[in-house]
Amino acid sequence: MSSFYRDNADLQFYVERWIDWEPLARLTEQGFRHAEGFGDAAEATQFYRDILEMVGEFVAEEVAPHAAAIDRQGLTLKDGEVVFPPQLEAIFKKIKDLELHGMCLPRELGGMNAPLLLYMLSSELLARADVSVMTHHGFHGGMAMAMLLFSINEGTTTWDQATGTIAKTRFEDFIREIGRGDAWGCMDITEPDAGSDMSALRARGEQDEAGQWTVTGQKIFITSGHGKYHFVIARTEPAPARSDDPMAGLKGLSMFLVPTYRDTGKGKSAKRERLATVERLEEKLGHHGSATCTIAFDRTPALLVGQRGEGFKHMLTLMNNARIGVGFESIGLCEAAIRMAEAYAAERPSMGKTIDRHEMIADYLDEMRTDVAGLRAMAVHGAYCEEMAHKTRLYRLLTMAPGSLEAKRSERDKQRWTRRSRRVTPLLKYLAAEKAVEMARRAVQIHGGVGYTTEYGAEKLLRDAMVMPIYEGTSQIQALMAMKDKLSAIMKNPQRFLRDVAQARWRSLSARDPLERRLARVQVLSLAAQQHLITKTAVDKLRSATRRPLPEWSQAVLKDWNPKRDFAYAMLHAERLTRLLADEMIGELLWEQAQRFPERRDLLDRHLERAEPRARWLHEEITTTGDRLIARLADASPSDVARTA
Amino acid sequence: MSSFYRDNADLQFYVERWIDWEPLARLTEQGFRHAEGFGDAAEATQFYRDILEMVGEFVAEEVAPHAAAIDRQGLTLKDGEVVFPPQLEAIFKKIKDLELHGMCLPRELGGMNAPLLLYMLSSELLARADVSVMTHHGFHGGMAMAMLLFSINEGTTTWDQATGTIAKTRFEDFIREIGRGDAWGCMDITEPDAGSDMSALRARGEQDEAGQWTVTGQKIFITSGHGKYHFVIARTEPAPARSDDPMAGLKGLSMFLVPTYRDTGKGKSAKRERLATVERLEEKLGHHGSATCTIAFDRTPALLVGQRGEGFKHMLTLMNNARIGVGFESIGLCEAAIRMAEAYAAERPSMGKTIDRHEMIADYLDEMRTDVAGLRAMAVHGAYCEEMAHKTRLYRLLTMAPGSLEAKRSERDKQRWTRRSRRVTPLLKYLAAEKAVEMARRAVQIHGGVGYTTEYGAEKLLRDAMVMPIYEGTSQIQALMAMKDKLSAIMKNPQRFLRDVAQARWRSLSARDPLERRLARVQVLSLAAQQHLITKTAVDKLRSATRRPLPEWSQAVLKDWNPKRDFAYAMLHAERLTRLLADEMIGELLWEQAQRFPERRDLLDRHLERAEPRARWLHEEITTTGDRLIARLADASPSDVARTA
Repeated sequence: MSSFYRDNADLQFYVERWIDWEPLARLTEQGFRHAEGFGDAAEATQFYRDILEMVGEFVAEEVAPHAAAIDRQGLTLKDGEVVFPPQLEAIFKKIKDLELHGMCLPRELGGMNAPLLLYMLSSELLARADVSVMTHHGFHGGMAMAMLLFSINEGTTTWDQATGTIAKTRFEDFIREIGRGDAWGCMDITEPDAGSDMSALRARGEQDEAGQWTVTGQKIFITSGHGKYHFVIARTEPAPARSDDPMAGLKGLSMFLVPTYRDTGKGKSAKRERLATVERLEEKLGHHGSATCTIAFDRTPALLVGQRGEGFKHMLTLMNNARIGVGFESIGLCEAAIRMAEAYAAERPSMGKTIDRHEMIADYLDEMRTDVAGLRAMAVHGAYCEEMAHKTRLYRLLTMAPGSLEAKRSERDKQRWTRRSRRVTPLLKYLAAEKAVEMARRAVQIHGGVGYTTEYGAEKLLRDAMVMPIYEGTSQIQALMAMKDKLSAIMKNPQRFLRDVAQARWRSLSARDPLERRLARVQVLSLAAQQHLITKTAVDKLRSATRRPLPEWSQAVLKDWNPKRDFAYAMLHAERLTRLLADEMIGELLWEQAQRFPERRDLLDRHLERAEPRARWLHEEITTTGDRLIARLADASPSDVARTA
Repeated sequence: MSSFYRDNADLQFYVERWIDWEPLARLTEQGFRHAEGFGDAAEATQFYRDILEMVGEFVAEEVAPHAAAIDRQGLTLKDGEVVFPPQLEAIFKKIKDLELHGMCLPRELGGMNAPLLLYMLSSELLARADVSVMTHHGFHGGMAMAMLLFSINEGTTTWDQATGTIAKTRFEDFIREIGRGDAWGCMDITEPDAGSDMSALRARGEQDEAGQWTVTGQKIFITSGHGKYHFVIARTEPAPARSDDPMAGLKGLSMFLVPTYRDTGKGKSAKRERLATVERLEEKLGHHGSATCTIAFDRTPALLVGQRGEGFKHMLTLMNNARIGVGFESIGLCEAAIRMAEAYAAERPSMGKTIDRHEMIADYLDEMRTDVAGLRAMAVHGAYCEEMAHKTRLYRLLTMAPGSLEAKRSERDKQRWTRRSRRVTPLLKYLAAEKAVEMARRAVQIHGGVGYTTEYGAEKLLRDAMVMPIYEGTSQIQALMAMKDKLSAIMKNPQRFLRDVAQARWRSLSARDPLERRLARVQVLSLAAQQHLITKTAVDKLRSATRRPLPEWSQAVLKDWNPKRDFAYAMLHAERLTRLLADEMIGELLWEQAQRFPERRDLLDRHLERAEPRARWLHEEITTTGDRLIARLADASPSDVARTA
């Protein structure tokens, strides 16, 4: 029986050897206190492995063979309901039978209580079979987890302290319904005139005199939006008419949980009453097993999540996980592209040898293999840190006295995990999505003429991949986030930055291990590019600051800040900086692996072989270009303001 | 009335100011000797402009508006014939009415006698409207021109010496039929097991006792292969069973012209008798208005073109033009992608301004504008040189005594034009095709979510673009050609290479104009990369050569050459070298323009801003990486030979 887990040595390295399961299993199992739970980490980890073995076989045998048919048939909108092709229906029937929707839900809510990391690893396997199936699957358990998380955050969940199990939670019925596979949820943010720019959202939430909330407005591009439970971001306070702060409009947003239909009757008299209308199903380039809906709410009854005005904040709590999820999704697609390309290249003869022996094709395949391993290092790291942050916090809330020494240490731990997760997330989402497109494109190219036909499946991968850099925050948004986080951190703590620069320089010259020296050279270039952007950013605003010592910049630079104008130069180079930061991060993670597992040195070597020249290139582009374009944009600004006012 | 010519200032620059029309018009008009022809170059050039004005309006008004419908409906195979959607039928009816199929055919064969360069410029306009329409259009007049050229080359065309007009040509009836728009031709090379590797072709040409040739075999991926006239490459001598020379199989190939159907009767009794079968129509990712056919010949009567065994040679005579054609096609697609992206970015607001004012998007658009102008400089140069080479030769054959001083000078001119054309062609085909994919991808990305839907047309551009790097020789084949030509030239004339290096160094330091210095820096890097590849290539074969002075390498290195083994390193880096050579060439062409037209300096400046850091990067990759992969491939070779033997 084929398995997408068993045949993937790099993925197994993480599961079998790299991931530090003990602390994660301990937190997930609430310190192994539950009688029905596992006795120790070893028991838990064996269970996790069993799940991956099962999923690996399931996706290889039951999903991958149907991907082409699902792509060809796609979804249709009929009488206001989205109709799945039979193969997709059958797959979700099997997922339900395998009880996979409850993989990460707590046992007391009917789930398997597996770590979210396991869901992420499964996502790679499922995405390798078909990204659109993986996506739709993600809107089941993922949304149930979101319901639980929102309830915890708003304080409507209580626990049995002795066992660490949940006693009551606000959305329990919904969660159980989803866990059984009888419904799924989605997240409704985008509107026709508001994509990346959430402050422009206009859908509104209103409260009647009895206190009942309703939601009214149109949401577009809602993935799996034909489902029952919608998290809707809607405006409960008006947006400021005109403000210098482009983020001002975010403050009036609230988060609602909105059931969009009611099923009544049973058997023959079963009827579905729609409370919100699926108006449209997008015809997309790819991702054909995943519904992308336009949905209209018209005074639809809604449940306010948390407090009014907290909508953006609540959305942010899910954002990192969603983006890490797209990272794993992209990796699954990359893996599919590589294997398809490798298989074809190993069979196709040209000029007396198979084309995988032709230097240029061998070089492509080598780079693809190296890159996907680098992405996986980031993804596993990101998912682990994100989950540790979340579960460290939960465990503290549940078991520690507020203000105790133990709680303070736990809070610091949580912050450290959060920082790590926040650092890697935009780099992962950015690079994995871009690489998915690049690798799918190469798979087509390596297939030559047949790659351009619909028969071989390479072109499907490209069509599927093209959405990765667009949804869950475009690549450009990821780059802006990575850049702003990095530069803000430097401005907040320039001493630390100076120390990093000194250390990297020293290591680049003096480290004993040549791999460490090479990694440090990439870091030196990355830090130099950061310093240049900081200087450029500051110099336009306050020339005098650069003549003062770096530790004093912070104060001088942080006053009277106008992000629109002052960040222009850094924004121009945000994508280049992000590429550089991702190369640096992959290098760091692989170096960490290489120190404990010498067989991983080869991977780091291959990564650095390409990362070093690229780092010099990106550094040079960042430090020597851009003035012309910034000047042109500055010239154009007045008329532009007039035009769009 | 909108016009794709009138709205394109960069294209007009070439037509109105840059192209040296006089010599081209003189050769095209056979020295203005024909009473029915133009009196001088000015008259001819005005006519050329009129054609572009007409085509520019026609494609904007009559083709572009139907591109989406043609893409959606595509072609179908019914009862062995390919059926066009009505919009496509209507377009070709209009092209026929406008007599555009005869644009470049001689007047005496019913044509307009315009230069092929004009066809190429029109191709950009047509491709901007729809690349698949442009492609199918190209298989009309282009194939008629090929028939004339083959007849001239095999000596079956005669002229009236007084006027320079054609008296008799072998395929006149076919040519006139195509010129009228009543038929078209195609080129049948690829077979299921032979794509880039023509030596593996197996279709065969056989001659019966009466001297009649027939062709038997299956050809796949035949663009516009549902037409009447097929140039078929078939084997007339067996391929060597086993040879160290991978090109040995090319020697037994011959070129045939094969009519694939006969129409008999008129009106109601009209009937089409097929002599070869259209077995299959490929379902492709894009390019939906262009038929890609599998066609089977079974003892189909055929006309041998030239001598047996000359098939590969004859094919080569068309190859450069076909590749330059794909260059213009790709540029048309780039232009469409840029304009679509610019228009959307200028309208779409985000964070208080339209997204074309966001630095990263502005940077993309700036790069796209710069790149398409650079591609156009290469394309116009390539098409001009190719046509001048061809027409200089024709004019010599027609008007000069063999061996005369005049003929010798003309022959040298011809060789110079050929060298220039040969240098630019693979660079153009490579870069234009790659940029078409990149720009279409960016157009999708700039559109965000709506770019992923089928509604806005950006995804269609990407689907259409993906074939550019595959057909008419893949990008990898172009890179190999560019690399081999360049390194061979150095080995043949190392003195000249050394002089180029010295000159570029001197110019990079001492040229008065900063733009010239910057261009020279790119050249220095390109030459250094070439020198490195030559050294690497030679060093593995004959270490001693590197210890002798460079002028002596030629002799030492050119003996006992094994291209498979010895070129491995250069083959690995062929694509990087090609990118570098293309940047260098664009720089040279724009520098030439900037010297005469100072308003072109800005374009060169923008090109160099990106080309300089990129050149350093590519140079570094070429000179510091690759050993690991070459070693791995060398290790793998023995088992590989065994496996594929």
